[in-house]
Amino acid sequence: MKYRDRLAIVADVLKAAETGAKKTRIMYMANLSYKLLEKYLTETIQIGFICYEQDQYILTEKGKIFLEKYHVFSSAFSQIEKEYQNMMFEREILTKMCEKPGEFPPRYNVRG
Amino acid sequence: MKYRDRLAIVADVLKAAETGAKKTRIMYMANLSYKLLEKYLTETIQIGFICYEQDQYILTEKGKIFLEKYHVFSSAFSQIEKEYQNMMFEREILTKMCEKPGEFPPRYNVRG
Repeated sequence: MKYRDRLAIVADVLKAAETGAKKTRIMYMANLSYKLLEKYLTETIQIGFICYEQDQYILTEKGKIFLEKYHVFSSAFSQIEKEYQNMMFEREILTKMCEKPGEFPPRYNVRG
Repeated sequence: MKYRDRLAIVADVLKAAETGAKKTRIMYMANLSYKLLEKYLTETIQIGFICYEQDQYILTEKGKIFLEKYHVFSSAFSQIEKEYQNMMFEREILTKMCEKPGEFPPRYNVRG
């Protein structure tokens, strides 16, 4: 599984509680240990992203705003990451072109 | 002046020699010390990007191809860098939203 930073874990917890959920469901959906679940539930409640209502955890308005902003950020960031990977590939081609003969077999006829 | 990597210096040397130039002009245009100029001229000649003709250094076909590719790469990379900076700014906003009360003054009315 890809490494998740704090923002991503918070977003996963909020997503799990979007329409209201109990601890076990959030733990499962956000893929967290019980210890981490407790930590993140406590924190997201303190921040005001989640509240405990009618026997379940549910997103607040502030939580919804955060989650929307996070989704916009996250998809734009994935796109940038892909473009950056392509750039690094292009850079590798240029670096190879810059290698001195012997380091890299010459592919072109050299003038002069 | 911004740090230039090997690719950027090679590109600056080639750009300076695009229409033919003597050492002093390349040194000035590529903003290099005499020692570095010698190193990069030797290398770009060995690679086949530049040749010495009629008393001046001039770009070869291979050099032209590299320079074109480099310009495409370089302008796309600058764009990505700008987008990445904007993303980091967005990320900072999200991180601030995720701070617990006391770490950051609350701006929202928190439900529950």
